[in-house]
This record gives sequence, structure tokens and C-alpha cells, in this order.
Amino acid sequence: MPSLSDVMAQHNNPVEMLRNSTIGMYVYPVVTPEFRNWRTEQEAWRHSAVLFDQSHHMDELIVEGPQAEEFLAYHGINAFGNFSLNRAKHYVPVTPNGHVIGDHIIFREREDKFILVGRAPTSNWLMFCAAYGNWNVRIKHDPRSTSRPEGERVLRTHYRYQIQGPDAPKVFEKMNGGPVQDIKFFHVDWINVGSKRVQALRHGMSGAPGLEIWGPYEDKHYIHSTILQAARDAGVDLVQCGSRAYSTNTLESGWIPSPLPGIYTGDGMLADYRDWVGSEMYESAGAIGGSFVSDNIEDYYVNPFELGYDFYIGWKKDDFIGKAALQKMKESGTNRKKVTFEWNKEDVLKVIASAFDDGIPYKWIDFPQPNYASSSADMVMHGDKMVGMSMFNGYSYNERCVLSLGVVDQSVEIGDVLTLKWGEPDDTAKTSAEKHRQAEIRVRVSPTPYASEVRTGYAADSWRTKAA
Amino acid sequence: MPSLSDVMAQHNNPVEMLRNSTIGMYVYPVVTPEFRNWRTEQEAWRHSAVLFDQSHHMDELIVEGPQAEEFLAYHGINAFGNFSLNRAKHYVPVTPNGHVIGDHIIFREREDKFILVGRAPTSNWLMFCAAYGNWNVRIKHDPRSTSRPEGERVLRTHYRYQIQGPDAPKVFEKMNGGPVQDIKFFHVDWINVGSKRVQALRHGMSGAPGLEIWGPYEDKHYIHSTILQAARDAGVDLVQCGSRAYSTNTLESGWIPSPLPGIYTGDGMLADYRDWVGSEMYESAGAIGGSFVSDNIEDYYVNPFELGYDFYIGWKKDDFIGKAALQKMKESGTNRKKVTFEWNKEDVLKVIASAFDDGIPYKWIDFPQPNYASSSADMVMHGDKMVGMSMFNGYSYNERCVLSLGVVDQSVEIGDVLTLKWGEPDDTAKTSAEKHRQAEIRVRVSPTPYASEVRTGYAADSWRTKAA
Repeated sequence: MPSLSDVMAQHNNPVEMLRNSTIGMYVYPVVTPEFRNWRTEQEAWRHSAVLFDQSHHMDELIVEGPQAEEFLAYHGINAFGNFSLNRAKHYVPVTPNGHVIGDHIIFREREDKFILVGRAPTSNWLMFCAAYGNWNVRIKHDPRSTSRPEGERVLRTHYRYQIQGPDAPKVFEKMNGGPVQDIKFFHVDWINVGSKRVQALRHGMSGAPGLEIWGPYEDKHYIHSTILQAARDAGVDLVQCGSRAYSTNTLESGWIPSPLPGIYTGDGMLADYRDWVGSEMYESAGAIGGSFVSDNIEDYYVNPFELGYDFYIGWKKDDFIGKAALQKMKESGTNRKKVTFEWNKEDVLKVIASAFDDGIPYKWIDFPQPNYASSSADMVMHGDKMVGMSMFNGYSYNERCVLSLGVVDQSVEIGDVLTLKWGEPDDTAKTSAEKHRQAEIRVRVSPTPYASEVRTGYAADSWRTKAA
Repeated sequence: MPSLSDVMAQHNNPVEMLRNSTIGMYVYPVVTPEFRNWRTEQEAWRHSAVLFDQSHHMDELIVEGPQAEEFLAYHGINAFGNFSLNRAKHYVPVTPNGHVIGDHIIFREREDKFILVGRAPTSNWLMFCAAYGNWNVRIKHDPRSTSRPEGERVLRTHYRYQIQGPDAPKVFEKMNGGPVQDIKFFHVDWINVGSKRVQALRHGMSGAPGLEIWGPYEDKHYIHSTILQAARDAGVDLVQCGSRAYSTNTLESGWIPSPLPGIYTGDGMLADYRDWVGSEMYESAGAIGGSFVSDNIEDYYVNPFELGYDFYIGWKKDDFIGKAALQKMKESGTNRKKVTFEWNKEDVLKVIASAFDDGIPYKWIDFPQPNYASSSADMVMHGDKMVGMSMFNGYSYNERCVLSLGVVDQSVEIGDVLTLKWGEPDDTAKTSAEKHRQAEIRVRVSPTPYASEVRTGYAADSWRTKAA
């Protein structure tokens, strides 16, 4: 099978390669599009309780062995000193040049065994690194479910559910058969779900408190039924969230799921990585969508400072991949900062209105999830100057507006009104976009996370508020 | 298990029962929501070629035995005199009172064996009728696929594909390994798909010529691959149509998929039927959505004259269920007529705009398919007088507007501008709709079918143009 290097060699540059991907939408697979309707499902995580089925859209990587901790600490920016068995971390690997590769949630199941879940770039990178560095670790990779099962059966290693929202605690108590112990944010403990003992992570993806639970996939039906019954017993209207609403929860909480992995440039280890990555893997087959077009793929990279992950960095660690580069970045003063863009209502409606006229319309804004590529990059302009990049879009019924997450130059301030270029300047081969023309949409720069509940609530001490 | 009669007894009337169904959206199951994007997929059936996977959303009923023809002729309005082995029919059963129950496409596989495909009301009714009348027929029922497989495997008796659009003939020739014989509209013949010999129906659901093919479900992967390869070999950009775009093809061609079966009232056979129908079947669990609320469920019924099916009626048949009632209806002069409603752009945008304001918005118009129940009934008003009922909605990227299909009083004329009430006057238990308020949308009464290609093209002699 050809490698990423082989595929790149067939294109003028990797931007051209990725902008012309024909892989289609980056979807949240297998889960039904709408259990009720996406408005009500969005509303539930803010106002009652929501059940997310996260069993299918993430890679899972099990890393175990005598060097498991050492291996992971060396390939992620995170401090590992406080990583006890009852904690989870938001794990961020960067390249030797300090660019973000991706991120996973990492759980420590034993002293020598870790479970990581998230998008493919991090799992692919770690699989390579284990072989490249000749580490004494065993890795089991369970890739995310197929995007288009079309009626074929889909199996995973683990089921994974998250229950969230103001009414979620009542459901937990019923599931557990009694009060649930206090679990701190991003800590893990064991609870009961009916007759099963399961691990639970204190989380809160859409900005409301919640628990994420997981276990063997064969228990999925039992766990699912037990959760729904617990909700009924608790008198809670627990709303199952479908795949159309799912990805938009991050707009309210401020996590950017889709940075382009910074692996298309660089020599040494990175060049070897590109020879290792296969032509059908995420890095080769994925897509860049959006108005920002640069010949230099490094213009799409981001670093941990820009995504608000700098306070994760374990500076005290002897060494880790990217440490020297991050030290330079820290001192550079040129890092952008993460913000939320609030899209102007009239301009959004202008774009939608064009779908009712003859001729080529503006790029359609699909509701609630207008992203049309695995990584999005829309130009955010101040006059003629690009001052930011919008990276993840969606409509929030809770906030009654289209929001996007991205990064802006340090000169940009909260409250600034900038212009987002929506739609691509040229026709690409991307099948996920119709033929369209570009529109300008005014955006107001807003804090991240946007949701006032998150800004003022439990997450005030988390990374989510550190960037803006 | 309780029957429909039992469930009805728990409600004030069947309208209240159906308006408060919690079953959720009536979806096109299993098939991926978007293979490319729904705009491009809609465009393909008009401008290039589209592949519909119809394997999952319809019931299939096999009726065979010495009395198969007699049984079907007695329970449908259609003339059967010309029903040779190489023809298909659009089969319409009505109640003894002449109200439409539903419709299926019926194929004659042998002298004594028929295959029917379509929504549940027709298959349920025929299963009942076979037992009720003590007919010498064997029936095999393959219900449509589950709406939410959630990763479980889904199997059917047959796969079913349709290829359509101006470039479709090039694909057929490659699939067949040579020119395909001329098959007349709604006629059936055998063609090759690679190494398989399959039956093909000349059809054209979205208004463009096409063929529908079917065969054993285990051949599905082979047939699918062979079709895609034939398209590549023919240089045709064959676009696979996802479940979001699929249901909207009928808006351009003019078929109303979702009449409410007229089985909730009437005594004798109909009362016995309601005792036979189970509480989880379509008739009991389905939903009515829309602004039209009447205490009398008969106000939701339609008859064959109103849907443009009157020229199917086999008046020469000695007798068939509903014949006497239809004779009266024919002479009544009160039958409504089928039309297309073209929704006013500004009013549609006003509804969408409300989703950007605080408070309770207008009912969201989801794109491209805003239906939120198995049967839709929206009031169409002329001033204070209800003069029509809108029954199936959707946005057409080809026509750049929202269209709906429905029936209007004889007094209404093409070109009239009426007012459609969009959204429900009260809160129901329907999970498919968010809390909303009603909007008024101007609609222009237009011919059925709406698409100019269909109006002037091959279908000019078909039922589709007879109603308006």
C-alpha cells in the first residue's frame, strides 16, 4: 500500500492534496441522526439531561507494558507526575517542531496500562512512535467505526456513554442504586449501572456536569437499557442525542476537535512517519475545507499555546517530544489565542437566502453542523488582513446563533467585529461541498467557552477558560 | 399484545392519539445520510445520474397461490386485465368507504406470484384481508428495516436499487454489457448486471428516466460494486443518494408517499381490522404532524380521485373493495385535486430567522426534509377558509425553493396564492418537533408534478400529470 509520502509526491503540495479529498463529510458514525430532533437534543444538555453515545466516533488505543507511562509521558506535552489511577487527562502530543498532532482523553487503568480515546491522528502517531523508538509497550488499536455501515454490523472493544445536564445527577443516583460519591472534574471512579460495576469519568463536554462511563461492548445493550430505565425511575426526561446534534456540543464548551496534525512537514522522525502512514489513513485521505488557502501547509498548524493547552505542559519532565520547540514558542510572543466567533445573524440569513435564487448560491450552511471536512480553516479578516482562522462551526439552538471556534492574533480583542470568509475561492474535488461562491459573514469575537453557564460554572478552573 | 382498537379506546379520538405519538421522525433508514452532500445529490437526478438504495425503507409483501391475482384485484382499485408478466402497477387499495389505505408498487413475477413494495399500511391491510376473506394465498411479509439500527446488522429479502437521470442510460449499457432493450414506462424486463441476470422496472421517481432493479439481498454488495464500476467505465459521475435527499425526489415528480390510511373509522371489516392491527404497528404508533387539527379523523383521509389515481380504477371488474363508494365519489363533485405548493421565499426566511431570536421560534424548517411525522397535514387557507391540505414537504435544490404536495378544493386554481399554516397550534407529545409557534407562509398553487422536465417529458401520459 502506498504511504502518505507517496500520495504527497503526486500533488503540488499537501494543501492541494487535502483540499481535494473525495472522502466526504467527517461524520459521527453509526448513531442515529436524530432520536427526537436536533433542536430538542441540543436543548437537553443545557436544560434537562442528555445521553451521548460515544461508542463509535473515536479511535481507542490501549497502551500497556513496563514502559507504558514513560512512553506516553515522552510523547505528550502533559505533566505525568500527578497521574494516579483515579485520574484522566487531556493528552496532547506535538511534533518535534511543537505543532499539535491531536488530542485524546487518556485513562490510567493500571500502573502499566492506559486507555486513550480520540481522533485518529494521535493514535496513528503513537503506534508509529512505539515502533520507531523501540519502546517496550504493547499497543492495541481499535479504530473508530466505519462512517457508512449501510446495514452491516459494527463492533467495538468498548461502549462509551456520557450523561450530562442539570438533571443528570438524579439519573446517576438511580443507576447506582444510591448516591454517587463525589468525583472531581476529570477524575475517575467506579459506580454501579444496575448489576454492572463500571468506571466513570467526571466530564462535561457541552458545558454541563456529567459522567462518562465505559465497558465491554457486549454490555452495551444492558447498560443502555439500564440508563433509560434509571431515567424513567428518576422522573428525568433523558434525551438521547443523535449524530446531527452531537458534534455541536463543543461549540458551547470550547474544545476544538479538529486541528490539522502538524505532520506534513519536517524531516527526521516526521519524514519517517510520513513513510509509515498509509494512503487510506486519516492524514492521507482526510480533507481540509474552508476559505483559507495557502501553499504552505504549516499555515494550518496550531500549537498548544494557541489551543489553550499550555498549562498542561510538563516543563519539569526531563525531556519529551517537542519540549525545545515549545520553549521557543512560549517566548516568541507570536502565539495566537483561542476564541469563539459569533456569526452575524443577518449575514447568515443572507447566505441561506441565496439558496432560493437561481445561479450559484453561497456555500450552504447546513444545520446544525456546517463543517464539510475533517479539518476546517476559514479566513477571519480585519479589513484586508487575515487575523484569525475559524476551525469548527455549528449552530447552537441554546444560544440561537451560529458559532465557530478558532484562533486569532494577539491584537484581536473580545468584542471585535471581524469578517469571516465563508466558502472556498475555487472549485475543489471535495464531494462534501456543492458548487458555491464565497460570502462574507461578520463575526463578533467572543470568549471561549461561549456558553455563559460554562464561563461562570464548574469549568472556571479548567483549561477551557484559559485561552481567551 | 393490545390492538389498535385497544389503543384508540385510551384516547379521546384517533387524531389525538396520532398527534401525540412519540415514535419520532419517519426516516429513510440504514442508508447513510449523505454520500456527498444533499444539494449535489439532488442535483444529480436532474443533471447527471443518481443511485438510490431503496433496499431498506419499504415493506415487501410476496403474495402467491392459486388465488393471488383474484385476491389482489379484489383488494385494489386497479384494472388487472392488462397485467402481464412484464408489467408493474401502482397498486392502490381503498377501504370499503373508498378512502385510500396506501399504495405499493406491484410486480408480477409469475402467473401466481406477485411482489409488492411500499409503506406498511398496504402490506398490513393485505395480510389482514387474506385471513379475513379466507383466500387461498400465501403471504410472506418482509417489514422495512429498523429506523435505528445503531450498529446492528440489517437484512432484507431483496436489495433494490434505482438509477436515474440523463446519464443513466450510459451506465445501464455498461452494466448490461451492451445496449439495453427498450423497456416501456412501468414495464419490467431482464437485464444483466455483470454476471447476474436481474429484473428491471422502467421507472423515474424524481422525474428523470431510470431503471429499478432488485434481487436477493445477498447479491447486494456485488450489484452495488458492479453498478459503481459500470459508471466509472462509462465516464458517468453517478452520485449515490443519501437518506437526507432521498425523500425529496418525490416533490419534483408529484407522488404523495404518506396519505393517512382511512382505517380508523367504519364498521364491519374495518372494525375487525382495527382489532387485528397491533399496538406497535404503523397505524397505531405512527404520527400525524402539521397545523391541521380536527376531532374527526376522516378529515385527514383522501380518496383516489384526489391523489390522481382515478384513471387506475378497474370499473369493469365485477367487484372490488370500495367500488360502490368510489362510484358515489366519482359523481359527488366534491373531490379535491392534487397540486404542488410553492412556498414563498420571504416567508420561509422569516421562519428560519426566528431561530436566531430569543423566545419560542417558529417551527424549524429542516433542510431538505422538514416533515416531522409519518403523515403530514398542514392547513392551506384562503382568508379564513381552509381550502387545502399540504401533505408532504421539502426543499428542492433543483428548483431552489420549498415545495409541498397536497390537495385543494376544486375552486382553487393554478397560480392562486394561498396561506399555509406552518407549525402546530398546541404542544403535542411528538418528540420530532421542538416547542414552537405557528407561522403563516404564502404558497403559490402550482401544477403537479412541479418539475418542468416532468411536465413536458416522458411522464406526460402518466398518472402524475392527471391530477392537476
